[in-house]
Amino acid sequence: MTDAIELIRRQVSNLHQELVRYGLVVWTAGNVSGRVPGEDLFVIKPSGVPYEELTPENMIVCDLDGNVVAGGHSPSSDTAAHAYVYRHLPEVGGVVHTHSTYACAWAARGEAVPCVLTAMADEFGAEIPVGPFALIGDDSIGRGIVETLRGHRSPAVLMKSHGVFTIGKDAKAAVKAAVMCEDVARTVHISRQLGEPLPIAQADIDSLNFRYQNVYGQQPAAR
Amino acid sequence: MTDAIELIRRQVSNLHQELVRYGLVVWTAGNVSGRVPGEDLFVIKPSGVPYEELTPENMIVCDLDGNVVAGGHSPSSDTAAHAYVYRHLPEVGGVVHTHSTYACAWAARGEAVPCVLTAMADEFGAEIPVGPFALIGDDSIGRGIVETLRGHRSPAVLMKSHGVFTIGKDAKAAVKAAVMCEDVARTVHISRQLGEPLPIAQADIDSLNFRYQNVYGQQPAAR
Amino acid sequence: MTDAIELIRRQVSNLHQELVRYGLVVWTAGNVSGRVPGEDLFVIKPSGVPYEELTPENMIVCDLDGNVVAGGHSPSSDTAAHAYVYRHLPEVGGVVHTHSTYACAWAARGEAVPCVLTAMADEFGAEIPVGPFALIGDDSIGRGIVETLRGHRSPAVLMKSHGVFTIGKDAKAAVKAAVMCEDVARTVHISRQLGEPLPIAQADIDSLNFRYQNVYGQQPAAR
Amino acid sequence: MTDAIELIRRQVSNLHQELVRYGLVVWTAGNVSGRVPGEDLFVIKPSGVPYEELTPENMIVCDLDGNVVAGGHSPSSDTAAHAYVYRHLPEVGGVVHTHSTYACAWAARGEAVPCVLTAMADEFGAEIPVGPFALIGDDSIGRGIVETLRGHRSPAVLMKSHGVFTIGKDAKAAVKAAVMCEDVARTVHISRQLGEPLPIAQADIDSLNFRYQNVYGQQPAAR
Repeated sequence: MTDAIELIRRQVSNLHQELVRYGLVVWTAGNVSGRVPGEDLFVIKPSGVPYEELTPENMIVCDLDGNVVAGGHSPSSDTAAHAYVYRHLPEVGGVVHTHSTYACAWAARGEAVPCVLTAMADEFGAEIPVGPFALIGDDSIGRGIVETLRGHRSPAVLMKSHGVFTIGKDAKAAVKAAVMCEDVARTVHISRQLGEPLPIAQADIDSLNFRYQNVYGQQPAAR
Repeated sequence: MTDAIELIRRQVSNLHQELVRYGLVVWTAGNVSGRVPGEDLFVIKPSGVPYEELTPENMIVCDLDGNVVAGGHSPSSDTAAHAYVYRHLPEVGGVVHTHSTYACAWAARGEAVPCVLTAMADEFGAEIPVGPFALIGDDSIGRGIVETLRGHRSPAVLMKSHGVFTIGKDAKAAVKAAVMCEDVARTVHISRQLGEPLPIAQADIDSLNFRYQNVYGQQPAAR
Repeated sequence: MTDAIELIRRQVSNLHQELVRYGLVVWTAGNVSGRVPGEDLFVIKPSGVPYEELTPENMIVCDLDGNVVAGGHSPSSDTAAHAYVYRHLPEVGGVVHTHSTYACAWAARGEAVPCVLTAMADEFGAEIPVGPFALIGDDSIGRGIVETLRGHRSPAVLMKSHGVFTIGKDAKAAVKAAVMCEDVARTVHISRQLGEPLPIAQADIDSLNFRYQNVYGQQPAAR
Repeated sequence: MTDAIELIRRQVSNLHQELVRYGLVVWTAGNVSGRVPGEDLFVIKPSGVPYEELTPENMIVCDLDGNVVAGGHSPSSDTAAHAYVYRHLPEVGGVVHTHSTYACAWAARGEAVPCVLTAMADEFGAEIPVGPFALIGDDSIGRGIVETLRGHRSPAVLMKSHGVFTIGKDAKAAVKAAVMCEDVARTVHISRQLGEPLPIAQADIDSLNFRYQNVYGQQPAAR
């Protein structure tokens, strides 16, 4: 086991706690994965194991076809989708999947979340788009994620009638995108309950997004 | 006291904490029971005792007519309904009752939760059905639960103007169903606030449900 | 200081933590009081003190006119309303005031919460009624509470444009009523967002309420 | 480093935990600052640092033009707005910025929160007003805050399509205003979902606000 794998095991295990803390998951219904830098591998949650029982040791290591390389459990049932993303989007270092409430509420109607908050312009730079309805079991979900997000500013996609997938330069960035996705999906939903949110001009969205992705924080922001 | 009874006392006591953790109950308004394998007995919450004071020792053991066999308190006021389910559905090993918010909101209108999320197809395989209005005090509630759930894929029923009952192969599976029931009742409610969720084709619901009940997780999924 | 006063100081101090735990209060905006059995006194929260700094020692003891008898701080700014209730409803041993979200949402429209859940028939036995708009500073609020609740089954009143007051045989029963009031106000609100909840027949409400107030729990239910 | 600076560093660091506790922030998206009494300085959150890693030591000290005077990180990306407020409103000792959900939902529609609750009359004395849409990067946000709040009773402004800024005599008062702003934005939103909240007469708003700002609590209320 290389040091890089150990590091990603620990990161991926810990980041699942952020899904719990921000209320994005119930029972065992969400998962985080992280690419191992310099190797054709990624680390992902075991299937059906409660969040409080996750440890670096019980994380599953897979190759980019989703085959288990190390680990005593089955990998997440969403492993094929994560693997497809890593194979087709080489700049992606982390993937997150959740059924977070408000994002799923938009996904169930097949509606994109419009970009009507400056924080959304910062993080997503556009609407949060909708991907196709796809059944689990083959590459349909992975292909739907990649086709929707390739060339899109948004690191999050609402898969129709299903849930959210987010990507990032590493697993932490993908988790941040999942947290912010639910946050803006909730705020825009609530705003629309009593009327139409005001649009933000495209030039302002562009300018906010450029600034945030380049100057915010102590170092360049994730994706 | 047999070992089997001790085990179920401990499980049932602990599982009540999941109701609290997932916000399904306030004060003393929900309860879990578990059938004792190999005996005509089940273990249930004492009536009116706060969740933080529940221990394996103060759980109540009842026979399948709901008569107390062991325990220093009165059993839950919903004991007759649990007993009826155990008498009439021999494959059921656990029953849960809650007044969780979103499920009750559908129950108050007497409306089933439509199956419009893949997670709902996985867990429930159908809409979450509505059972009859029934008063406490005789077998009306138990009969309403059994008549609604017998032959139905859903492990959850919304009893009209009342609350949720869920069943499972054991108490843990019934608790999981109660958690997922509130989760999908909430997401579908929120989705419908701004329009109609997209339907999922019946063949897709069937396929998702079959797969989830047979291949998901480290071992066969509950119910 | 009598033992009875010490006991009520401790109960009232501890019960404020239930308001926090159930999310009924933010900052310092709610209060609990309890009558001292056998004396013309009650114990109430000090004004403007954070919930985490409340102790039995800093509770304020007042006479039934609301004058401070013991305590180093000013009493809650709602003391006059509590005192009025104790003077005019001798069977009341506890009073709670909150601005809990859903109850206030009904109060802001001046609308009673209709009795459309069996749990609400159990606890409230009727709609949760609306009291008059009243300014703080004299007996208007107290009088509005008493005139609305005297002869009413409900232990909770929604004071118009203001918040909730609940009463009970002791402070714990009044806190339970405040918790259940917010719970049913929330559930009925959410139910009505997507249609009209089904009515429950008056005879069924009567029967549920009679049973619950007389046979539920390990001992007779509060109020 | 003076004692005054040390004190404000500690206060500002600790007060960020209140934003977390009351659910006003996710990830790193809100900030508190406090003016150093007797000096032309204020203390503010470092940019992009998680709330659980904030300490008095890593707070940033700025002059009133927003230049860093002490601190090992970049200051919050909202520093220019805070600085503008301190330069133009000398009575202000604390500023808070959040993207709290319900306040942002009103801000996204560009709608003021009407004063329809007595608690809102107490704290805000008026509607919570809307400020202009303004991009980050120059003084536009600061100017929008000051122009909206100067001469207004409300210590909170909803910046259009963006979020909330609150002011107070010190950082704690500004945090309290942020907590109460979200609380009333939520309650009034929920109330309006099912109809129109009743208006409160202007004379009653005036009287409630005067009383609260002068007699409530153990000492004069903030702002």
